[in-house]
Amino acid sequence: MQTRIEHDTMGEVEVPSEALWGAQTQRSIQNFKIGHEHLPCPMIRAMGLVKKAAAITNAELKQIPDELKNYIVDAADEVISGQWDHQFPLVVWQTGSGTQSNMNCNEVIANIANQKLGNPLGSQKPVHPNDHVNRAQSTNDSFPTAIHVAAALHINELLIPAVQRLRNTLHAKSEAFNDIVKIGRTHLQDATPLTLGQEFSGYVQQLDNGIKRLEQALVWLYELPLGGTAVGTGLNAHPDYAEQAAAQLSALTSLPFISNPNKFEALAGRDAAVFASGALKTLAASLNKIANDIRWLASGPRCGFGEIHIPENEPGSSIMPGKVNPTQCEAMTMVVAQVMGNDTTINFAGASGNFELNVFMPVIAFNLIQSIQLLGDACNSFDEHCAVGIEPNREKIDYFLHNSLMLVTALNPVIGYENAAKVAKTAYKQGKTLKEVAVELGFVSPEQFDEVVQPEKMVHPNVK
Amino acid sequence: MQTRIEHDTMGEVEVPSEALWGAQTQRSIQNFKIGHEHLPCPMIRAMGLVKKAAAITNAELKQIPDELKNYIVDAADEVISGQWDHQFPLVVWQTGSGTQSNMNCNEVIANIANQKLGNPLGSQKPVHPNDHVNRAQSTNDSFPTAIHVAAALHINELLIPAVQRLRNTLHAKSEAFNDIVKIGRTHLQDATPLTLGQEFSGYVQQLDNGIKRLEQALVWLYELPLGGTAVGTGLNAHPDYAEQAAAQLSALTSLPFISNPNKFEALAGRDAAVFASGALKTLAASLNKIANDIRWLASGPRCGFGEIHIPENEPGSSIMPGKVNPTQCEAMTMVVAQVMGNDTTINFAGASGNFELNVFMPVIAFNLIQSIQLLGDACNSFDEHCAVGIEPNREKIDYFLHNSLMLVTALNPVIGYENAAKVAKTAYKQGKTLKEVAVELGFVSPEQFDEVVQPEKMVHPNVK
Amino acid sequence: MQTRIEHDTMGEVEVPSEALWGAQTQRSIQNFKIGHEHLPCPMIRAMGLVKKAAAITNAELKQIPDELKNYIVDAADEVISGQWDHQFPLVVWQTGSGTQSNMNCNEVIANIANQKLGNPLGSQKPVHPNDHVNRAQSTNDSFPTAIHVAAALHINELLIPAVQRLRNTLHAKSEAFNDIVKIGRTHLQDATPLTLGQEFSGYVQQLDNGIKRLEQALVWLYELPLGGTAVGTGLNAHPDYAEQAAAQLSALTSLPFISNPNKFEALAGRDAAVFASGALKTLAASLNKIANDIRWLASGPRCGFGEIHIPENEPGSSIMPGKVNPTQCEAMTMVVAQVMGNDTTINFAGASGNFELNVFMPVIAFNLIQSIQLLGDACNSFDEHCAVGIEPNREKIDYFLHNSLMLVTALNPVIGYENAAKVAKTAYKQGKTLKEVAVELGFVSPEQFDEVVQPEKMVHPNVK
Amino acid sequence: MQTRIEHDTMGEVEVPSEALWGAQTQRSIQNFKIGHEHLPCPMIRAMGLVKKAAAITNAELKQIPDELKNYIVDAADEVISGQWDHQFPLVVWQTGSGTQSNMNCNEVIANIANQKLGNPLGSQKPVHPNDHVNRAQSTNDSFPTAIHVAAALHINELLIPAVQRLRNTLHAKSEAFNDIVKIGRTHLQDATPLTLGQEFSGYVQQLDNGIKRLEQALVWLYELPLGGTAVGTGLNAHPDYAEQAAAQLSALTSLPFISNPNKFEALAGRDAAVFASGALKTLAASLNKIANDIRWLASGPRCGFGEIHIPENEPGSSIMPGKVNPTQCEAMTMVVAQVMGNDTTINFAGASGNFELNVFMPVIAFNLIQSIQLLGDACNSFDEHCAVGIEPNREKIDYFLHNSLMLVTALNPVIGYENAAKVAKTAYKQGKTLKEVAVELGFVSPEQFDEVVQPEKMVHPNVK
Repeated sequence: MQTRIEHDTMGEVEVPSEALWGAQTQRSIQNFKIGHEHLPCPMIRAMGLVKKAAAITNAELKQIPDELKNYIVDAADEVISGQWDHQFPLVVWQTGSGTQSNMNCNEVIANIANQKLGNPLGSQKPVHPNDHVNRAQSTNDSFPTAIHVAAALHINELLIPAVQRLRNTLHAKSEAFNDIVKIGRTHLQDATPLTLGQEFSGYVQQLDNGIKRLEQALVWLYELPLGGTAVGTGLNAHPDYAEQAAAQLSALTSLPFISNPNKFEALAGRDAAVFASGALKTLAASLNKIANDIRWLASGPRCGFGEIHIPENEPGSSIMPGKVNPTQCEAMTMVVAQVMGNDTTINFAGASGNFELNVFMPVIAFNLIQSIQLLGDACNSFDEHCAVGIEPNREKIDYFLHNSLMLVTALNPVIGYENAAKVAKTAYKQGKTLKEVAVELGFVSPEQFDEVVQPEKMVHPNVK
Repeated sequence: MQTRIEHDTMGEVEVPSEALWGAQTQRSIQNFKIGHEHLPCPMIRAMGLVKKAAAITNAELKQIPDELKNYIVDAADEVISGQWDHQFPLVVWQTGSGTQSNMNCNEVIANIANQKLGNPLGSQKPVHPNDHVNRAQSTNDSFPTAIHVAAALHINELLIPAVQRLRNTLHAKSEAFNDIVKIGRTHLQDATPLTLGQEFSGYVQQLDNGIKRLEQALVWLYELPLGGTAVGTGLNAHPDYAEQAAAQLSALTSLPFISNPNKFEALAGRDAAVFASGALKTLAASLNKIANDIRWLASGPRCGFGEIHIPENEPGSSIMPGKVNPTQCEAMTMVVAQVMGNDTTINFAGASGNFELNVFMPVIAFNLIQSIQLLGDACNSFDEHCAVGIEPNREKIDYFLHNSLMLVTALNPVIGYENAAKVAKTAYKQGKTLKEVAVELGFVSPEQFDEVVQPEKMVHPNVK
Repeated sequence: MQTRIEHDTMGEVEVPSEALWGAQTQRSIQNFKIGHEHLPCPMIRAMGLVKKAAAITNAELKQIPDELKNYIVDAADEVISGQWDHQFPLVVWQTGSGTQSNMNCNEVIANIANQKLGNPLGSQKPVHPNDHVNRAQSTNDSFPTAIHVAAALHINELLIPAVQRLRNTLHAKSEAFNDIVKIGRTHLQDATPLTLGQEFSGYVQQLDNGIKRLEQALVWLYELPLGGTAVGTGLNAHPDYAEQAAAQLSALTSLPFISNPNKFEALAGRDAAVFASGALKTLAASLNKIANDIRWLASGPRCGFGEIHIPENEPGSSIMPGKVNPTQCEAMTMVVAQVMGNDTTINFAGASGNFELNVFMPVIAFNLIQSIQLLGDACNSFDEHCAVGIEPNREKIDYFLHNSLMLVTALNPVIGYENAAKVAKTAYKQGKTLKEVAVELGFVSPEQFDEVVQPEKMVHPNVK
Repeated sequence: MQTRIEHDTMGEVEVPSEALWGAQTQRSIQNFKIGHEHLPCPMIRAMGLVKKAAAITNAELKQIPDELKNYIVDAADEVISGQWDHQFPLVVWQTGSGTQSNMNCNEVIANIANQKLGNPLGSQKPVHPNDHVNRAQSTNDSFPTAIHVAAALHINELLIPAVQRLRNTLHAKSEAFNDIVKIGRTHLQDATPLTLGQEFSGYVQQLDNGIKRLEQALVWLYELPLGGTAVGTGLNAHPDYAEQAAAQLSALTSLPFISNPNKFEALAGRDAAVFASGALKTLAASLNKIANDIRWLASGPRCGFGEIHIPENEPGSSIMPGKVNPTQCEAMTMVVAQVMGNDTTINFAGASGNFELNVFMPVIAFNLIQSIQLLGDACNSFDEHCAVGIEPNREKIDYFLHNSLMLVTALNPVIGYENAAKVAKTAYKQGKTLKEVAVELGFVSPEQFDEVVQPEKMVHPNVK
């Protein structure tokens, strides 16, 4: 590999000739050979947005020349586009402030700009990574700003639409299944009936709530640390910088970002991320319930509940038809397990700030973005490859419903509680249906039984 | 111990003669000898409130006679008052629906009422535990309703006021310390200065946010499952019951409870609790930061940071003055550790519902209430025994501030960056102050140095 | 309440007249009004054992007079017996070193001894709580020693026997069910058969392994910090004290306690507890699997798997027979959820030591002992009230087995793969049994089918 | 992209022309577009080892022809070498049994072998992915076997040596610092002295213990599920296969793998992984303590503890010398946070098996391997870039030691407890040293003070 020599205050560093990054990034590559987890792409895009907003604001405030600003903005746009993601080689396990990733971004943007201006890589002029790209910023405020921007964008662009899509599918199923009366189950035991549509309506409600809770969490992510600089006092930033840069980020993203009213909290606490993870794990709990219900309802084909069919996406047993492994449910529940663990990580990291800074930022960013990504992708995949194809197995549903002993309660008003209990006990002992026994014991005629025992009346008791 | 005989559908049970509880509670005592963790008192109070609201509503809807209603309400009021807490002997580790604790409450209220009506314990008349006290309810809707009521009341009555109190104390400290300039610290390393008041203002902001996040979580706790009965369909409840009972609970507690719009979600999901725990753990993360900062800032007396004094509440070393163990900080951080673990428990439990019911309700109630209680009590204790007595150690603060090398940045404009760096490096190597070196090297006079290097100018750079 | 006045270095304290505790305990009661969680009883017993061993050792080493030693030992024996548990009023949420609980124990023992010697409560003579009872100890070494002793005793006396008991019951079931061939299930889908005994043998193996893992964890709990005193150097302790006191504790408990070879690790790390919690949560994972399997296998009575019957311990539905809620399974899975959360708490606390001490000791003790207690009690309860009464539902098992399409694989060698697949597909589509279809399609006679399709041959394929 | 057409039981699939994988892998790519987390490389290597061992064993047992075996073994060796890692495109979030990754491996090996035999990709002959490569295996036993092999190898090859390396460095430091007496700190407060070497010896002990705990965990990973096939009965495997394949894997890896004595536990439980994660999180807790201590001891340069110097690996402040951010400590503590979260994920997943299979295997593999990798890499990085360069700051250590008031305890025997306390109190109030005050008050001469107050005598009190 060919290299060029760059200099920093500690001396010379060999950087790959074509790399857009510089000395500080290179030192980090060498000093942190830990794992394979790179800073996630949404963070790179968000850092680009922060640099762009800072440059525009600094130019407006006459802190950098307009011409340099234009070059910085163009370079930042390229970073934002994702085309230079491979120029961000650093792993999560670096400085806890993310300093080296921030410098990585500064170096890449400066190099792109300077190249366009005809200067070689590493020239640091006319656009200087620190003096211009990082102008009025410290890693300590710009990196957590990038976390907020990345998470807020990813929740808005990926996660909420994915949950909404799944919610809409389940809502359509709920409507379609509205008249399918089935046995209810509590404690895994047969209980009074409800409709399959009602059962699904609970899932819809969980997802509707989940979206609203994400929106509650977003409120805090919209508060940006930018302008606090090194310790929260805003030293070296123009007095109007914080507000204007936040407004700029809002304009660039169409999200209601504002400047955090207290920059000391903004740098030293990462509570917004901790709370956002709280909303994500709540959504995960909902999805676990939904995916579990669906795989149990689809269990069988012969020896399980089998009340619904789910799509067969992969070859199951070549010889045994109907064995459809609930693989999308399994992917979803594994994602849930991951999100629960990510939440523990974020709790541990978020609780561990000291004095003016929390130095667990890259690991927070990594886990937060991963949770958003996995939940979003899993909802889309579950929707497309499972939920849309769910169909009721009416035969099985009816079989259970009419075999259940719970329907005996409908006989109470007609034959009395004592006799009804006798019917149920006899049916249970002899393995017969309620109807068989009720008729055999002479309490009702078959016609009467059918007239009285109508489960569909038990599922909408509150319709006035 | 003397006993009386009670009967249930399984046969005879010996119940302590004086016990207000009945057969079902007694069976649970015998069947679940697990641990010592009783259902928390706020849950008993909340169950009493649910029974009271149900009785009033049922009477309004002509489901139970007015006279019985009055006796039930009076008995429920006694339960609500806490005077019968010792009549709730069941542990958390019972039926996952809380059925036995619900029956415990039904039995106690029925017995109190029937005693007043001149009937012996266990008579079950005229007030029947099931037919009257539990009227229009199933454990499946009344127990989770009690969880919501208990948590909402405890957050409103204990936790938010406690956080507010601590917040107010820290706010007063922040104001009082507003002019005390001190060295900042990032990565635990000396950084640019800020004021002690600014540092504390970050804590205030964290707690202000924490309260708002609790309020966001309360929104979901205000949605009540009551009226869903066994599986969510509302079977056996009057059509108007759910709405009116929720309104009644709202009136009784002055909290904006409403009927959950989807009773299937209300019974099968426990997401509101999972999200509330998310708000609690976020508050815990904030409090961990605050308590940790304070114990580190108070470390010493001679060999630590020692920038603040905290109250001495217990005898320290008898011979060594000034050794004040930060015991309130330690209690707080232990509470934080507990809340983080409780959150994991609630996540696990909340994600584990099946079909029409989540059967991890007692463990969710236990952990949720414990987290609220511990955070509330710990905030009060920390406030009273630590925060109010925090005083700055001005000597130590000044010593660090003026020994720090970070102030050299103020010399840049006067003697140039190169010379300023030379001053810092010489001071570091020779263990001298910046002032000593700057004067020795002939860059400034002592008077000039004092005029230029004024840390207080660095802490409010954005004052226009 | 009547009080007496006690003095400490900070002044006067009012202590309840009859209390065996003294000034330091009383201050803690007043300063830490947080929650209701008292230090668990096994910790009180263990502190008594530590005090007893220390007194014996100190007397042997001529550090305290023999006569005082005898009185201390007698008083410690009373504490060990549990009769004075109510004299330990402190909560978990106190000093992170447990200092106040250690002093509580010193005060109680001194007062018991001095009372017997005819001196009033609070006289502190001739037995002094610090100079004699706490002799050669610091809270910093004696409290973590008590944690190790308490946890080791509780694992040995409660948990391992309970797991063993449940294991034996399940082993007996496994033997009894050895010939009951049933359908296997993977991905919740019908799979090749196994015997019910084989299924249960997996549970037995999990519990056998669980016991061995507990024994692996005990190795570390057997290493005692005692003798490290305040910071690990052993200042103020006789050179032979650490070894002899550990030997004494070993003699008193019949457990192989030894002196931790490095007292700095012993005081500052709590890794033994973290690892023990790791063994406990692994056992919890096993028990979750077992309890879940059993409640799903018992689901029904009509609309679930229903392959086993579990005992009915409480009245279920009065009208519906056979609805047996799996309450012991639910108690167990709630315990599991708690143990998982306790593990998170212990991880957080165990990772948070600084310099010469970990100050999260009471919360570690609380969670560790709770996990041991809950798992032990839950195993006993589950064993007695559920496992012993498990019975196969042979009809249901046979029904599923013979309805399953998986048995078609046995036809392969006789009618060829293609035809076998055709049989299965037809059976699936037409809702018939394999036998019906195989005969209808003319591939085999009914007799042939029965001869070839013998599921019992598929469950022990490796019997040579 | 050019494609070829492959067939499976569900029809045609377009596979990239040059891909070594086949139809089943391709379907998974399309059906599971979730996240970016691929199955980790150690799993690919382990799957290769399993296939190799299976092929050799099957050939020995005459289940596959020797010639095919040779081709399979050669192809497996290539997979094991890592050269085909890019042919394993599947993500973690797939079927919970890992079926599709198992098929990926079968397809790749078959294609490599068939290509060498002159047949085109996808020909499936003469080496068939199922009939030959997957011979006598089910995903259900071979995938968890791969998890055990991957984790055991990675712990032995990467993690234990890395911990050992760091341990050796810290041990050398401990020896080198053995005579450097310093102030101890408990509750973050000044305490009695110890040596810097003693402090470091605690870290060494933690890591020594950590290695032993990993070895305790390995015992369970050495038990292999292979031979259980689909549900644990071993259907379709030769009676000698399980034992011989395990012996083969042992021979191939030089690790003491054995066949799990109960294949039902082996398939349905993942307890070995849960327990291994318990050992990993305990090691993480130790490393957190060590990294935290080191960054606090290195805090400063002027306004912190500053008792040690750590290497400067990146440019700090350009103008402020001595500001060395503890970046390796920060990377380490972030890794710890991740491992703690991974443990939660593994607990959730490990507890969630049903009946004959646990379907959270890929997520368990992912988190377990990640924890091993991160801890191993972080130990190496921390060792190389931080621990080896730790140097004491003797001036600061001495300054604190001699300013501390704790040394006053050494005066007790000479001037009495009362006078010693007076000295300390006066020194504290007036901000003087003990020596100054003791001499001023006329209790001792300066020479006497120096003779009596020798901290080095307090650090080895038990040397007889």
